[in-house]
Amino acid sequence: MTITIIGLGLIGGSLALSLRLHGLAGRLIGVEADVAYARRAMELGLVDELAPDLPTAVSRSGADLIIVAVPMDALLTVLPQVFNLITNKQVVLDVGSTKAQLLAAVAAHPRRGRFVATHPMTGTEFSGPDAAVRGLFEGKTVVLCETEASDPDALDLVETLLRALPMRVLHLGAAEHDLHVAYVSHLAHLTSFALALTVLEKERGGEPRIFDLAGGGFASAVRLAKSAPATWVPIFRQNRANLLDVLDEHLHQLHTLRALLADEDYEGLTDALRQANEIQKIIP
Amino acid sequence: MTITIIGLGLIGGSLALSLRLHGLAGRLIGVEADVAYARRAMELGLVDELAPDLPTAVSRSGADLIIVAVPMDALLTVLPQVFNLITNKQVVLDVGSTKAQLLAAVAAHPRRGRFVATHPMTGTEFSGPDAAVRGLFEGKTVVLCETEASDPDALDLVETLLRALPMRVLHLGAAEHDLHVAYVSHLAHLTSFALALTVLEKERGGEPRIFDLAGGGFASAVRLAKSAPATWVPIFRQNRANLLDVLDEHLHQLHTLRALLADEDYEGLTDALRQANEIQKIIP
Repeated sequence: MTITIIGLGLIGGSLALSLRLHGLAGRLIGVEADVAYARRAMELGLVDELAPDLPTAVSRSGADLIIVAVPMDALLTVLPQVFNLITNKQVVLDVGSTKAQLLAAVAAHPRRGRFVATHPMTGTEFSGPDAAVRGLFEGKTVVLCETEASDPDALDLVETLLRALPMRVLHLGAAEHDLHVAYVSHLAHLTSFALALTVLEKERGGEPRIFDLAGGGFASAVRLAKSAPATWVPIFRQNRANLLDVLDEHLHQLHTLRALLADEDYEGLTDALRQANEIQKIIP
Repeated sequence: MTITIIGLGLIGGSLALSLRLHGLAGRLIGVEADVAYARRAMELGLVDELAPDLPTAVSRSGADLIIVAVPMDALLTVLPQVFNLITNKQVVLDVGSTKAQLLAAVAAHPRRGRFVATHPMTGTEFSGPDAAVRGLFEGKTVVLCETEASDPDALDLVETLLRALPMRVLHLGAAEHDLHVAYVSHLAHLTSFALALTVLEKERGGEPRIFDLAGGGFASAVRLAKSAPATWVPIFRQNRANLLDVLDEHLHQLHTLRALLADEDYEGLTDALRQANEIQKIIP
């Protein structure tokens, strides 16, 4: 199978490595708007060849499958362009983190059936082709959204490929997907950014003690704050309503904990932390 | 050297393993108030023998070094009791996460010089003797507070021991220590607890989608929320003023990010996240 990957960053690059590792791609073609990224992807051997533009990557390549792995804002522009180029045999999947706005934008396109909306629940805080790592997808969950709008053969090809990585395939509606990822992914990123800003603000003018004192807990809590704004601002933007909603709930929880501490209600604080411990049953 | 460890949980138990691994303890005596923990510590071989009470563990044992590894609230009671039992040759160290209140409480004790206030910047979200792991201290930073109040021979014994683990020794005043750990450790725990509560609240009555969807980012962000309230409430309590201060800064940062998103100021949001990325220079 010939596969074209549009966007050779963390996700596109890692997917290239996984597809090759599991013998799922006979020929891998890449296309990447950033010239330095494109050159680096070739140096790293992520793909077999680079296409100079979308028409070459999608049409002249004869690719069976086109994977669109560009940031969420670019995706809104690139996906319809890809739809305009494909035949009714080619299959397209994206790897975007939000779905409702994207699916509404392409709902009426005559090639909509060739598309499978895909969100692999994985990633790291790094970006670009140098961030591509083996094993990023193996054993992880992948959400397919509104698959009833995909042609059965397109859906079958995508599911078979993802299960071979192997990934665990889950079906969700776009609205349900966007709500759930707001609090299992987007909120955690936003709070981590805020935590980093807090510490950087508090350190201003002080001695550089963070590095000396930071243990594993702090490193783990601010890991996501290293993530690229170019990736995350478009995600926050397209999932704005859900994110504002869960952020308000989070602010409410923080204000509640603050009040317990301010009032020296240590029994109430113990109860609250014990309740938070319940997360262990869900995320062991 | 004979070493007594009071409290055989995560920190006391892991320290026993490290001391033995590096050949630093000829004989290890443990004392543990929780009967089940005490039995489990012996089953795991964390210590050579159990002492039934503090006088046996501290005086009749002839221990050269006594390590007090009990929760912060118990520490305020246990440390003076240990001081009352030791000779002017024995050395005592604690491993508590806050220092100002503790050091004020023992400042006037005639045995204060035999004590070295110690805070190893390490841990996990687990607790009890079963949480004890090899390698918890190796390569980590340890803060010694107000060492000018320790006898030179006591300080020398403790520093030599910690450097042999090997740990990186840092000296700080108690007030400075408590302020810095408020934001590199205590705040990260509090926000993680709040994040877990947010998600648990949002999931209430919904489908159990968290487990299905949670990627590594979420797992990393809520890891600290699994920590024991019995460990953390006393820490939050004794560092209350500093923690309220950094929590207010954090709430301010979260409200700022919220306003940027609500106002759709994506340029401002990008600037803020880019600023948060600076944490990468400090915690690589």
